[in-house]
Amino acid sequence: MSTRTVVRGGLVVTASDEIHADVLIEDGRIAALAATGTPAAEAFTADRVLDARGKYVLPGGVDVHTHMELPFGGTSASDTFETGTRAAAWGGTTTIVDFAVQTKGQSLREGLDAWHAKAEGNCAIDYGFHMIVSDVREETLKEMDLLVEEGVTSFKQFMAYPGVFYSDDGQILRAMQRAAGNGALVMMHAENGIAIDVLVEQALARGETAPRYHGEVRKALLEAEATHRAIRLAQVAGAPLYVVHVSAAEAVAELTRARDEGLPVFGETCPQYLFLSTDNLAEPDFEGAKYVCSTPLRPREHQAALWRGLRGNDLQVVSTDHCPFCFAGQKELGRGDFSKIPNGLPGVENRMDLLHQAVLDGHIGRRRWVEIACATPARMFGLYPKKGTLAPGSDADLVIYDPAAEQVVSAETHHMNVDYSAYEGRRLTGRVETVLSRGELVVNRREFTGRKGHGVYLPRSTCQYLS
Amino acid sequence: MSTRTVVRGGLVVTASDEIHADVLIEDGRIAALAATGTPAAEAFTADRVLDARGKYVLPGGVDVHTHMELPFGGTSASDTFETGTRAAAWGGTTTIVDFAVQTKGQSLREGLDAWHAKAEGNCAIDYGFHMIVSDVREETLKEMDLLVEEGVTSFKQFMAYPGVFYSDDGQILRAMQRAAGNGALVMMHAENGIAIDVLVEQALARGETAPRYHGEVRKALLEAEATHRAIRLAQVAGAPLYVVHVSAAEAVAELTRARDEGLPVFGETCPQYLFLSTDNLAEPDFEGAKYVCSTPLRPREHQAALWRGLRGNDLQVVSTDHCPFCFAGQKELGRGDFSKIPNGLPGVENRMDLLHQAVLDGHIGRRRWVEIACATPARMFGLYPKKGTLAPGSDADLVIYDPAAEQVVSAETHHMNVDYSAYEGRRLTGRVETVLSRGELVVNRREFTGRKGHGVYLPRSTCQYLS
Amino acid sequence: MSTRTVVRGGLVVTASDEIHADVLIEDGRIAALAATGTPAAEAFTADRVLDARGKYVLPGGVDVHTHMELPFGGTSASDTFETGTRAAAWGGTTTIVDFAVQTKGQSLREGLDAWHAKAEGNCAIDYGFHMIVSDVREETLKEMDLLVEEGVTSFKQFMAYPGVFYSDDGQILRAMQRAAGNGALVMMHAENGIAIDVLVEQALARGETAPRYHGEVRKALLEAEATHRAIRLAQVAGAPLYVVHVSAAEAVAELTRARDEGLPVFGETCPQYLFLSTDNLAEPDFEGAKYVCSTPLRPREHQAALWRGLRGNDLQVVSTDHCPFCFAGQKELGRGDFSKIPNGLPGVENRMDLLHQAVLDGHIGRRRWVEIACATPARMFGLYPKKGTLAPGSDADLVIYDPAAEQVVSAETHHMNVDYSAYEGRRLTGRVETVLSRGELVVNRREFTGRKGHGVYLPRSTCQYLS
Amino acid sequence: MSTRTVVRGGLVVTASDEIHADVLIEDGRIAALAATGTPAAEAFTADRVLDARGKYVLPGGVDVHTHMELPFGGTSASDTFETGTRAAAWGGTTTIVDFAVQTKGQSLREGLDAWHAKAEGNCAIDYGFHMIVSDVREETLKEMDLLVEEGVTSFKQFMAYPGVFYSDDGQILRAMQRAAGNGALVMMHAENGIAIDVLVEQALARGETAPRYHGEVRKALLEAEATHRAIRLAQVAGAPLYVVHVSAAEAVAELTRARDEGLPVFGETCPQYLFLSTDNLAEPDFEGAKYVCSTPLRPREHQAALWRGLRGNDLQVVSTDHCPFCFAGQKELGRGDFSKIPNGLPGVENRMDLLHQAVLDGHIGRRRWVEIACATPARMFGLYPKKGTLAPGSDADLVIYDPAAEQVVSAETHHMNVDYSAYEGRRLTGRVETVLSRGELVVNRREFTGRKGHGVYLPRSTCQYLS
Repeated sequence: MSTRTVVRGGLVVTASDEIHADVLIEDGRIAALAATGTPAAEAFTADRVLDARGKYVLPGGVDVHTHMELPFGGTSASDTFETGTRAAAWGGTTTIVDFAVQTKGQSLREGLDAWHAKAEGNCAIDYGFHMIVSDVREETLKEMDLLVEEGVTSFKQFMAYPGVFYSDDGQILRAMQRAAGNGALVMMHAENGIAIDVLVEQALARGETAPRYHGEVRKALLEAEATHRAIRLAQVAGAPLYVVHVSAAEAVAELTRARDEGLPVFGETCPQYLFLSTDNLAEPDFEGAKYVCSTPLRPREHQAALWRGLRGNDLQVVSTDHCPFCFAGQKELGRGDFSKIPNGLPGVENRMDLLHQAVLDGHIGRRRWVEIACATPARMFGLYPKKGTLAPGSDADLVIYDPAAEQVVSAETHHMNVDYSAYEGRRLTGRVETVLSRGELVVNRREFTGRKGHGVYLPRSTCQYLS
Repeated sequence: MSTRTVVRGGLVVTASDEIHADVLIEDGRIAALAATGTPAAEAFTADRVLDARGKYVLPGGVDVHTHMELPFGGTSASDTFETGTRAAAWGGTTTIVDFAVQTKGQSLREGLDAWHAKAEGNCAIDYGFHMIVSDVREETLKEMDLLVEEGVTSFKQFMAYPGVFYSDDGQILRAMQRAAGNGALVMMHAENGIAIDVLVEQALARGETAPRYHGEVRKALLEAEATHRAIRLAQVAGAPLYVVHVSAAEAVAELTRARDEGLPVFGETCPQYLFLSTDNLAEPDFEGAKYVCSTPLRPREHQAALWRGLRGNDLQVVSTDHCPFCFAGQKELGRGDFSKIPNGLPGVENRMDLLHQAVLDGHIGRRRWVEIACATPARMFGLYPKKGTLAPGSDADLVIYDPAAEQVVSAETHHMNVDYSAYEGRRLTGRVETVLSRGELVVNRREFTGRKGHGVYLPRSTCQYLS
Repeated sequence: MSTRTVVRGGLVVTASDEIHADVLIEDGRIAALAATGTPAAEAFTADRVLDARGKYVLPGGVDVHTHMELPFGGTSASDTFETGTRAAAWGGTTTIVDFAVQTKGQSLREGLDAWHAKAEGNCAIDYGFHMIVSDVREETLKEMDLLVEEGVTSFKQFMAYPGVFYSDDGQILRAMQRAAGNGALVMMHAENGIAIDVLVEQALARGETAPRYHGEVRKALLEAEATHRAIRLAQVAGAPLYVVHVSAAEAVAELTRARDEGLPVFGETCPQYLFLSTDNLAEPDFEGAKYVCSTPLRPREHQAALWRGLRGNDLQVVSTDHCPFCFAGQKELGRGDFSKIPNGLPGVENRMDLLHQAVLDGHIGRRRWVEIACATPARMFGLYPKKGTLAPGSDADLVIYDPAAEQVVSAETHHMNVDYSAYEGRRLTGRVETVLSRGELVVNRREFTGRKGHGVYLPRSTCQYLS
Repeated sequence: MSTRTVVRGGLVVTASDEIHADVLIEDGRIAALAATGTPAAEAFTADRVLDARGKYVLPGGVDVHTHMELPFGGTSASDTFETGTRAAAWGGTTTIVDFAVQTKGQSLREGLDAWHAKAEGNCAIDYGFHMIVSDVREETLKEMDLLVEEGVTSFKQFMAYPGVFYSDDGQILRAMQRAAGNGALVMMHAENGIAIDVLVEQALARGETAPRYHGEVRKALLEAEATHRAIRLAQVAGAPLYVVHVSAAEAVAELTRARDEGLPVFGETCPQYLFLSTDNLAEPDFEGAKYVCSTPLRPREHQAALWRGLRGNDLQVVSTDHCPFCFAGQKELGRGDFSKIPNGLPGVENRMDLLHQAVLDGHIGRRRWVEIACATPARMFGLYPKKGTLAPGSDADLVIYDPAAEQVVSAETHHMNVDYSAYEGRRLTGRVETVLSRGELVVNRREFTGRKGHGVYLPRSTCQYLS
C-alpha cells in the first residue's frame, strides 16, 4: 500500500470541475493534483504511472442502493456480496451502501450483524450499510441511536409491502422523530401499499396476471400520494427525508413542491426509470417479468420529468436499486400471478455507463453526471470527501473512463450473477477502462485484478446536506 | 511572476470541497494542491510560503455586478475603477464584471470603448464587462455578435427607467432572440418602470417626497410582474435569462416557478436585500437616502424568501450592485424629491464578510458561501475555472480568510471612496487577511500591497450553465 | 295541510336571486312567487297571510352534518332528535342530515335501522341520514348499493379514530370504488389518526393533559395530509369526494389544488372554525374543553383561508357538526386527559345567525349566505329543489328573517339541550322570526309552534353536482 | 304592452333552478311563476298563452361582447346594429353590450355619442355599451366617472394593437386606479402587442404571409404574459379585472392562480375558442382568413383547459366577440399579408346553440349553460336581475328552446349579415323556437316578429360580483 501511483494526463472530472491534471496517489489516498505539464506535475514521482491521456479521470462511483443476497418472496437476490461488488467494480463503482434488514420481531442489531457476516471478507470494493426498519418498537428507536454512533446513519422504511416491510404512519412518525434527534436520515419506499394490495387482489380476480399488470396496479398517483405523506410526516417530525427510487412524474412534482417550500427533502431515481418503461413490462412470453420492480416502470412520458428533476436538483441521486433475480427459476415464480414475481432488477454494473450516455444524449452535463453518481450520494450518506470526489486527502477510488469506447450491453458479457440484462443489446458510448480502490488496481485495462476481501466496511457520518 | 508560492496548512474551501491542503502557485496559477502533511505536500518547494494555519483558503471573490464611475442622474458613482477595485481587493474580491453603457443613439462599440478607457491601467484586480443595451436597433443586434466574440458575452436591459435605459418588450424580445443565437446571456433589471413612474408622479403630487417613498412606489408586485414578463419573453425567444438584484419575495416566487418548469432562468440578489430593509429607508433626517437603490429595499419579511432562494438554488449569485454616491453632495440631490436621489449603494468591499456572517448565522453553508460569491458568478459569466475556484490550472486568485477575526464595519475604516457605510457599526466575525491576484500579493496581512494597473481585462466565454 | 298561505312583502333571498316577491304556499309546497305589488301578486288568495315587510324570506336552512344522540367516548351527545331538531328550527334550519352509525361487526342495515328508530316520530323538522361506515367488508359494499336505492346516498369514513371509526386506505379505496359505481358520495373525516395517536400518547406522557393540547397534537399538516390522501384515493377510484369540517388553511390549499386540477372534490367547514380559535381551547379552568372537537379549532390566522375558500367556492358548504356534550358530567370526563374529552360542539341553532353576521362583516355576500347554508348542501346531498331554495314546487320550508334584530347568544336562552354555548355573550345582528316546515308554522314570531313528529324522513337522490 | 302572457308547461331553466313552472308576464316583466298544474298556476289568466310543453323556458341570452359596425383596419364590421341585433334575437340573445370606441385624441363622450347614434332606433333587442379607452388623459379619467354615473360602467383597454387601441402599463394603471374609485370594471384585451408586432414583422419578412401565421405569431405565452401583467396591475390599483376572449390554456392558468389568491379577477371565453382551432386557420385557399381573430384560435389541446375553466368557474362568461367581416372584399384585404386581415368572426347568432351542444356533449351542465350565457354576464355588467334570469320582477326576456330540434349551421340560413359561417355544416341539437323581449314576441315559432327600434338602451349599474 505504500506504493505511489500517478495518473497522468487525463481530464479530471468532479462534480464541480473539469481540469487537466495529474493525480498523485500515496498510501491509498489522493495526495495531490497538479496541472498537467507544469513543473509541479512533473515533480510527481511514482512507482506506477497510469496513462490517462484522452480519458476521463473520475471519482469512483458510489451506489447507495443495492440489495446483495436479499431474501425476497421465498428466494434471494442472485448476486452475493462477492459477485455483486465485483460487477460494481467492473462498472466503475467503488462504493456501495447496501441494506441490512431487520425482520419483524428481530432487533436491528441482529439484522445488522447478519449482514456484516454476509459481506465481511467477500467484497471487492468498500461498502456501508443502511438499515431497513421493519418493526418500530421502543427498543428499536433506542437501537437507532447506537447504530448512528457506529456509522449506520440511515434507516429505510416502507409504505409498501404490508405484512413484510410495511410501517404504518405512526411507526414512520416515531422513527422520523428519532432521526430528527440523532441526525439520521430516513429513506422511504413511498408507495401506498395498503391501497395497492387492494388493486392487486382485484386485478388477479379479474384474471389480469401478466407482468404488465404489476405496472398498472402500482399507480403513479399512489406513489405520489405516499411521497406527499412521507414529506408531511417528516415535516411534523422536524426530520429530513430521502425518497428512494422515484419513478412517477407526479411524485417528482411532490418533491418539487417540498423544495419550493424549503424543506430538507431529497429524491433518488434509478437508471431503469430513466431508460426503460412500461413497454418493457409488456414484453410478451413473460419476458416482462424481467422488468418487475417496485416502484414499477412507468409509461415513457414520465422520463422527461425525471430528467428535469435531475437537471434542476429536485432529484439529487441516481442509484441502481440493484436486486437481481434470474429469469429462470426466480422471475418465473410469478408465472400466472404477477404478484409472485420477485421484485428487482440487475444494474449495479450499468449505472455509470448509462448515465454517461445521458451526457451524450444531452440530458445532463458531464459534471452533473459525476455529481449524481458519485459526489452527492457520498455526501448524502456521510462519506464525503473520503468518497465521491478526487481531492487531496480523498480515498484513491478512481476510474479511468474512455468516453469514446463503444459497447453493447449484454448478459453474455456482463459480470453480474444473473441470466439476463435489462438493457440487452443497447449500444452505449463510453466504458470503464481502469478502476482503483484505495489506490489498488481492481480493474486494469478491462482486466479484473481485484480480490474478494479487499473491500472494507465504511462507517458513515450523518447526512452532510443538513449542516 | 515566475516566483513559486506555497500556501500552507489552511482549510481550502471551494464550492464543492473543504480540504486540508497546501496550495502551490507557479507563474500566477494554481499548480498543485496536496493534502497537508503528506510527502507530496512536503515536496512542494517555493520562494514564498504563506502560513494559513487556522485560516480558510478561498478562491478570490467574483463580483459580477459593479458600476464604477457610472454616470447617473447628473452625477457619477464615486468609486473610480482605481478606488473601487482596491476596495474590492480589501474585501477579498479579485474579479469584477462591470457594466459598460450604450447610451441612446450610440453604438455598443462606442460605449464599450469608453469603459475600456476608464478601466485600463487603473484596476488593482482583474475585470470584465457586461454591456448595457439602451438602444436596440438593427446595427445594435449585429454588434452583439461581435462583442460576444471578443468576450463581452452578457447584455443588460432595463424594464425600468423609461427615457434612460428602458427597453420596451419588443426591444427586449429582439435582443433575447439574438442572444439565443449567439450564446449571450441577457441580464434584466426587472421592474415595471412605466407603472412605477405613474406611482412616483402621484406620490410626489401628494407631497410624499422623503426617501422612504422610494420604497413604497417601487412595489414588490411590479418587480414580480416584470420578472415574470422577462421570463416569458425569454421563453418565446428561446433564450436564457439572468435577473439582477432580486429583492422581493414575490419575484423569487416567479423564479421558483420558472425553475419548476425547467427553464434556464437565473437570479441574483445582493447583500443589501439580505441585511437591510425598508426600516433603513425610513431613517430620519434624510438618512434614508443612503439606502436608495433600485430594486428598492423591502420590508424585513422578504429576507426569508431570499435566503430560502439562495439555499435551494432558486437564486444562484450574490453580487453587490456596487454603485456608491456620497451622502454629501450626491444623495442630497434628492432632498425634497426622492426621485432625484441617485440610485445605488456602496458594497463591493463588504460582500464576502457579510456572507460569511450569514454562514455563522446559519443561513447558508460554508461551501455555499463560496459557491454564490465565487464559483457560480464565474461560471455564469464564462470565467470558470480560471476564476471562482482553486483547482490546478486556475488563476492564483486566492484569499486567506480569518474566520475568527472580529470587525466593526464603518466608513471610517473602509476603503471605498464614499462618505458612509450602509452597514455602519455592524459587528461581523470573519475578515480577509491576505489576498493574491494571479499569484501576486494584493493585500498582505491587512496591508495593501497591490497596485493600480495590475488588473487586466478578462474576455469571457459564454455562460457555462447552458452547455 | 290544504291551507293556503301567502308571505307578503319580503325580500326573497335565494342562492341566485334577491327579489321583492310574495310567496304563495299550497299544500305544503311553494306554489308561486309573484312580484310584490303586481296584479299577479294581488291575485294570490290565502287562508293565512304572513307579513314579511322589511324582512328577508329565506329557504329553510339545511344542515348536513349533525350527530343527535351520538354515542361517543362512553357517553352520548346531549341533544336527542327531539331537542336537537327543535333547536334547529329555532335557528332557521328546517332540514338536517344526521349520521347513522355502523359499528364494527354490524351491518349497515342494523346501524341505519337503529338510527331510524331514534329519529322516527321525534323530529320537529325533516331529516335524512348519511351512513358512517366503520367496517368495510364485502357485504358492506353490497349494502351500500341497497342504501343508495333507498335514499341514503352518502357514506362517511374516518381517517381518524383508529380502533373506533377508522378505515384504512384499502377500505377507503374499496368504498370509493363502490361509490364510483352506485353514484354515492363518500364523505371524509380527513385527519391522519394513526400519526395523531402517536402525538397524543407523547403529549400525555409529557404531562400535557389540558384541553389546549388537543389542538396541538391534531396538527394542521396532518389534516392537510389526510385531505390530500383522500383526494388521491378518490382519483384512483374515479369517485367524487366531500371533505367534512375542514379547519386548516393547509387543508383548504389541498382542496384548491384539487379544484385547479378539475377534480370533483368538495369541502365543508363549520361556524366554529370561522368564529372560534385555539384561543378558546386555551381558556383556563378546563373551560377549553367546551371547544374540543375534531378537526380541532385552529389559530386565528387560519380563518382568512376559510373565508377565502368560501368566497371562491373551494369550500362549498357550512354545516355545524352539531354534537353537543354538557360541560358538567360530559366534557369533564376529560379532566386530566384531554384525549378523554368527548369531541363535539353544540351549534345547530346558531349557524344561520352566525353566517348572517358574516354577511354584515363583509366576509360573504347575502346570496352566498343562502347558497352555503341552504342551496348547496341540499344539492350536494340530493335534496334539491325540494329543499334549499324557494321555487315553485319546492317544499314550503321558509324562514322570515329579521336582518336588523339584535341578539346576544347565550346558553340561558338557547334551545339546545346543553349547558353551555360556544358563542356565549356574542352579539349578533339578525334573527329568525318565523319558520315554516312544509307550510306549517314551526316557529311563529319567536314562539315555538311546531311539534315532535312533524318532521319526516327524507330519502335522497345522489349528489346533484355530479350530473 | 299591457298584455298579459302566460308561458305554460315548460321546464324553466335558470342558473340555479330547473323547475316545471308556468310563467306569467305582465307589462313586459315577469310577474309570477307558479308550479305547473297547481291551482296557483291555473289561476293565471292571460291574453296570450304560449305552449312550452316539452321545451325549455330560458332567460334571454346576454352577449356582453359584440362589435356592430366596428371600424377596423380600413373597413367596418358587416353587421349593423339592425342586422346584428336581429340575428342575435334569432339566436336567443335578447341583450347585447357593445363597445363604443374612443379614438386617440377624442373624448370618451364623443365616442359614446357616436355609438349611441349608430344604435338608437335600430336595435331589435336591448343594448348597453362598454367604452373602449384608447387615450388615457387626465380628462379621460374624469370622464370615466361621468360615464359610470350614466350607466356605462365598464371600460376596455388593449395591451395589443400598438398605435391603434394600445394602452401602455401606465395608462392601464391609471384607468384601473380610477375604476377602483368609481366602481367601474376594466376589461382587458390581454396580449403583449409590442412583442407580437416584432414577431409579425419577422414572419412577414420570412415570407410567412398566410392566415395560419396569424396564429403562430400571437403566441399563447404572450397572451398568458399579458393576462398576468393585467392581474398584477389591477392588484396594485386595488381594482377588479375582467379579461376578454381568453383562448390559451396558459392564460387560464393565470386566471386560476389569481383566483387561488382570492383576487377579483374574471375571465371570458368565446365559442370560437371552444369549438374551433388552428386547424381552421390552416384551411387552404385563404379560407383560414375566415377564422382570423385576436386572441387567435389555438391548437385543439387548449380546449380542455377552457372547458375545465368554465366548469370550475375560473372562466365565468361566454360571449361572442361578434365582429363579422365578409370573406369577399373584407377578409380578402389580407391576401398576401395576414396582418391586414380584419380581425373578427361572426357568432352572435350561434352562441346559445353551440353552448347547448356543449351540454349534450357533457362539457357543462344545463344550469351552467344558462349561467355563463345569461345570468353571469348580466350580473357581471350590472344588469341583474332585470336581465339574465326569470324571476318575478325581471324583464320578460324569455326564450322557448326546443332541446330536441336538429339544425345544420350555415351561412345560407343564418341571419347575420356576413357571407360565411364559422361553423358551416355543423350539426347541432337544440334550437331557439320563440323569443320574447320585454314581453313582446321577437321570434315566434321560427318567424321573426320583432322590429328595429324595439330595443332600448340599457344604463347599467356597476359589477354585481364586487358587493
